[in-house]
Amino acid sequence: MKEKFYQYIQNLQDTITSKIEEIDGVSKFREDLWERPEGGGGRTRVIENGDVFEKGGVNISGVHGALPKAMQAYFKVGEVDFFACGLSLVLHPKNPMVPTVHANWRYFEMYDGDGNIVDSWFGGGQDLTPYYLFDEDAKHFHQVCKSSCDKHSADFYPLYKKKCDEYFYNAHRGEGRGVGGLFFDYCKATDDRSMEEWYDFVTEIGNSFLEAYIPIVEQRKDLAYTEMQKDWQEIRRGRYVEFNLVHDKGTLFGLKTNGRIESILMSLPPNVQWRYDHQPEPDSEEARLLEIFKKPVDWV
Amino acid sequence: MKEKFYQYIQNLQDTITSKIEEIDGVSKFREDLWERPEGGGGRTRVIENGDVFEKGGVNISGVHGALPKAMQAYFKVGEVDFFACGLSLVLHPKNPMVPTVHANWRYFEMYDGDGNIVDSWFGGGQDLTPYYLFDEDAKHFHQVCKSSCDKHSADFYPLYKKKCDEYFYNAHRGEGRGVGGLFFDYCKATDDRSMEEWYDFVTEIGNSFLEAYIPIVEQRKDLAYTEMQKDWQEIRRGRYVEFNLVHDKGTLFGLKTNGRIESILMSLPPNVQWRYDHQPEPDSEEARLLEIFKKPVDWV
Repeated sequence: MKEKFYQYIQNLQDTITSKIEEIDGVSKFREDLWERPEGGGGRTRVIENGDVFEKGGVNISGVHGALPKAMQAYFKVGEVDFFACGLSLVLHPKNPMVPTVHANWRYFEMYDGDGNIVDSWFGGGQDLTPYYLFDEDAKHFHQVCKSSCDKHSADFYPLYKKKCDEYFYNAHRGEGRGVGGLFFDYCKATDDRSMEEWYDFVTEIGNSFLEAYIPIVEQRKDLAYTEMQKDWQEIRRGRYVEFNLVHDKGTLFGLKTNGRIESILMSLPPNVQWRYDHQPEPDSEEARLLEIFKKPVDWV
Repeated sequence: MKEKFYQYIQNLQDTITSKIEEIDGVSKFREDLWERPEGGGGRTRVIENGDVFEKGGVNISGVHGALPKAMQAYFKVGEVDFFACGLSLVLHPKNPMVPTVHANWRYFEMYDGDGNIVDSWFGGGQDLTPYYLFDEDAKHFHQVCKSSCDKHSADFYPLYKKKCDEYFYNAHRGEGRGVGGLFFDYCKATDDRSMEEWYDFVTEIGNSFLEAYIPIVEQRKDLAYTEMQKDWQEIRRGRYVEFNLVHDKGTLFGLKTNGRIESILMSLPPNVQWRYDHQPEPDSEEARLLEIFKKPVDWV
């Protein structure tokens, strides 16, 4: 399974970065291959200063060895060996009318002293963070998420949509990071569903990513915008930074377990503003966005 | 003691904000008075878009009531009442040749069921974060810190300088936030030193703040700088954000105990950049700065 899934994310990284370069038309991804001293490594691809994408990363990694202390405590296990691999992406468009997107698909194994798998699971998700909200974009994104989920279980979309709203939440601001999407974790073999079936589910979601996001980019990337709207995007990106550095478990784990810092922090936006007590004009598009982020919406 | 120290920080806030406005010459502090639903409140003063200061806050607060759950766990106490007050300031200058400064002086009391003080202490410190380092600025700042400490104990400066280097450290980057200063906490009454004497020490440091920082501002604020140097300042400000959101206990406590978010996050810089794997030119002033941040320096 680990070889099969790593092969899958390698191919998916190629597919996604090709499409992003094609749409951007100007910038190309820079590739960095890196090795983890304790075992494994990754292939980081970052695009910057594009015509459509101001900054973005589409990274894969596969790491293994002794489970770091901090993760032993988190998973409530002793000294065990592990393997983890995944694809993580964040794309920060230049035009504030185009939403930021994040996605991640990952696989984890833990071993006993003889190298037998004692536990394994998939996790992942994808979510959308608009700066100016076109309702039909949120509906389209969620519709693709739902259609992909429904092929596997009618329970998945409502469950993973809810988990996404709960996870990507800036508790200190009382607002969601965006309009959500899907979030799932600890997808393990049960009587009802084998690891093969979970693989089919996770790769279905991964395969649907471009369909979920790219039509939105194509629709919005050439819309006109003002300097004030760009400022609003940069202020909202501040909330993105706050979520990733204060609340996001993946980021904090990476920072505390000697992960490759630049690959982890590629998620941070290129230009960000913090203004004291910034409040949008009443009844503006900006005020409407904040109102919507206060409470999850059923988009489909 | 609590009335006396609160009176002191009220006066110090006036003194500092007057001086900052005088040097800035253009912008004035905006004042927000706020109340904490559970007891107490504060006086937040923020300056933005000045000629010298791009953004800064000089805030006081005095809060009391039942100790929040998260702090009970931190202090390893049960359900007790508390009082806490302090002045916190961060100033982000426009000119990258002028360092950012942070300072904080605070007082804490805990009570038994009858309202008797069962524990009380002072804490605080001040530290400097340059973007371009003039060694004499770091020396001047530390010299003022040392002189103020030495009036109370020859042990204080080496001890609190070291604590500062240890605390303001971006462990995930392997670099200090800046060139340090002083950091002290849990300064409690002992056989050797009464709370009155701690009060004298803490207020000595508070009184020395303008002497430590203002001559540096005056010396550097009119120096010419390039757009590239401004970019470097904004990239380094990203490290400031990383420290405050990932490592700073005060910030995280505030965010997790329903503090006044805008007063806490006034510390975040106005314009910030994150570029993927940004590396300064070898042998440049920027490279020298990074080198110096890797290991604490004895400035005096």
